[in-house]
Amino acid sequence: MATIAAAAGRCSSPTRRQLLTRRRLPFSVSFSSTAPHAAAAGFGWTDALRVAGDGGRGDESDLSGYFRKVDTCNRGMDKRGEFVKFLVEDQVVGYVHKGFVKHLRDFHDVFTISGNNSSNTVENVSLQSSLRTPEDRTHAIGEVIKSLGEMIPGIRNELYPVTSSYGMPVYFSLERAAAPYFGIKAYGVHMNGYVEKDGQKFLWIGKRSDVKQTYPGMLDHLVAGGLPYGISCKENIIKECEEEAGIPRSISTNATSVGAISYMDIEGFRYKRDVLFCYDLKLPEDFVPNNEDGEVDSFRLIPVPHAANIIRRTEFFKPNCNLVIIDFLFRHGYIHPDSRGYLNLLQSLRSGDCS
Amino acid sequence: MATIAAAAGRCSSPTRRQLLTRRRLPFSVSFSSTAPHAAAAGFGWTDALRVAGDGGRGDESDLSGYFRKVDTCNRGMDKRGEFVKFLVEDQVVGYVHKGFVKHLRDFHDVFTISGNNSSNTVENVSLQSSLRTPEDRTHAIGEVIKSLGEMIPGIRNELYPVTSSYGMPVYFSLERAAAPYFGIKAYGVHMNGYVEKDGQKFLWIGKRSDVKQTYPGMLDHLVAGGLPYGISCKENIIKECEEEAGIPRSISTNATSVGAISYMDIEGFRYKRDVLFCYDLKLPEDFVPNNEDGEVDSFRLIPVPHAANIIRRTEFFKPNCNLVIIDFLFRHGYIHPDSRGYLNLLQSLRSGDCS
Repeated sequence: MATIAAAAGRCSSPTRRQLLTRRRLPFSVSFSSTAPHAAAAGFGWTDALRVAGDGGRGDESDLSGYFRKVDTCNRGMDKRGEFVKFLVEDQVVGYVHKGFVKHLRDFHDVFTISGNNSSNTVENVSLQSSLRTPEDRTHAIGEVIKSLGEMIPGIRNELYPVTSSYGMPVYFSLERAAAPYFGIKAYGVHMNGYVEKDGQKFLWIGKRSDVKQTYPGMLDHLVAGGLPYGISCKENIIKECEEEAGIPRSISTNATSVGAISYMDIEGFRYKRDVLFCYDLKLPEDFVPNNEDGEVDSFRLIPVPHAANIIRRTEFFKPNCNLVIIDFLFRHGYIHPDSRGYLNLLQSLRSGDCS
Repeated sequence: MATIAAAAGRCSSPTRRQLLTRRRLPFSVSFSSTAPHAAAAGFGWTDALRVAGDGGRGDESDLSGYFRKVDTCNRGMDKRGEFVKFLVEDQVVGYVHKGFVKHLRDFHDVFTISGNNSSNTVENVSLQSSLRTPEDRTHAIGEVIKSLGEMIPGIRNELYPVTSSYGMPVYFSLERAAAPYFGIKAYGVHMNGYVEKDGQKFLWIGKRSDVKQTYPGMLDHLVAGGLPYGISCKENIIKECEEEAGIPRSISTNATSVGAISYMDIEGFRYKRDVLFCYDLKLPEDFVPNNEDGEVDSFRLIPVPHAANIIRRTEFFKPNCNLVIIDFLFRHGYIHPDSRGYLNLLQSLRSGDCS
């Protein structure tokens, strides 16, 4: 079993107890210290399945646990005033924190900064108009990111396209880890894999590898990935199906696009603006996923209401997976219109700029 | 075959040719003047099925026909400034056109009007605080509506609950036909009934009765209805299933809530703010709907891509049904993320205040 370095990004290694949403969990969940793979995220399958299977709570129509998960992905809304627009060819492509702008001032060949930074009146940051081609821009910003070193941790060496909105011209490409520092919208594909047996639906849930850079050991849905430059959503989901769950193309080609969710999250200099294209894939009853890239520790097939319980009652899932599964719960009728807050929760799944 | 009076509401008896969205329809659709039931809406099933089945267009990824249908339900956004808030107990429950306010001035016992109407500086309209109970308010406004006579046409004698948002306390109940004159949010339940055969999905499409008060002869999905006071969404959909399509409770209880759409439409003094809870019902292959309340002329089972063609290429569907079917197309993967405008179209399905 792997031991683990500190979790990257938002996953700051919470304790086991912190991972439970206590206000709605009056009963005591005792964690076994010998639960398999409990090290990285503070819980194991045993813990998750115990919370999942407690059906006697009668809180199905209480949506507050879901609202809290949406909030976790949409922090710092009150801090938007600390950011200025990031423009390319007069189009807004992102937002940069005024404090981060200071670190960009020396790169005169790359950025134009309007306003007076010393008096905190920066108006916006533009890419130099002398950088005319996407290639020039990609290279120039890539060099800036290298120079900034540890200012931008967790470099992935994976390029994301930068546009004003999805499907529009790509102005340049940007290192994935740098996207939130420039408030660039990042797109991804997330897929719920499910099985139907005797009219009941089950979700395949993954537990992330304990040595994964981000959110180690946390729960995840079957397949997900960022959307890099130059690949369609459909091709990307097929590729990720193969790599993450060993799903052959003959099956993954049936993955169905079902909509999108979005969120915006501000933390320090980072302004995350993510849009996730959601997919469903109904799998054969006898299919068993098999991770091929080492990013997933193990999978379990869980009744949908049990997965819903984990979401509502704990923080075991990687935060943005909660939203994609909540979207699934809406579309498959597990969250009912007569539950108080139905419409607000539905709307909140696209709290970010979904364009 | 029934002949028909003028269509009520937004359906102002367009000609057959107007019903086709011409810009995207370079080929000529010749209408048979002997097509059954072509009288009321200007087209018959023969016409609809001809447009539906033309598969050689290669325009599946062109979303412009869908966008036009969304626009049809969301007119007059630029005229919102002509309306003032309608308040009950300091809560905004609706919006009233400044021109309509003039007709409310004489009802001192019912409304308080802030500002000066003669100089066009009305600030808002409130319900008199002396009207304390929902019953008092319902009665008082009911009397006003009677007094206004033909100002508010098409009285239904059906009461809608008035709240600030769904599930919140009901301040009073209001005649359905009057809701847009007070800018009250109106809620409804709309259901797509579908069948799956050999992996292909088919939608049951209704053609409204030629003698129906609103949108006579137009296409509709299988079941829909307003949400009156005192009934849950689920019970309402079960009731409408029985009345509109003869679906027994044993089947309709499987109707699955899948989300909601909303729109806001301004026309003259009317400010329509509708929220529709959407349902899917997968029907047995051998089920045949049977209208029991005389509101539907006939039903046809149509491959989903054919229904999509009718939506994109014509105006045969009752306008708000287009949005509910477009939502179905998203959730069932008939509209793809790689189509230009995907996210904008998805968002536009909730252009109204969806709360």
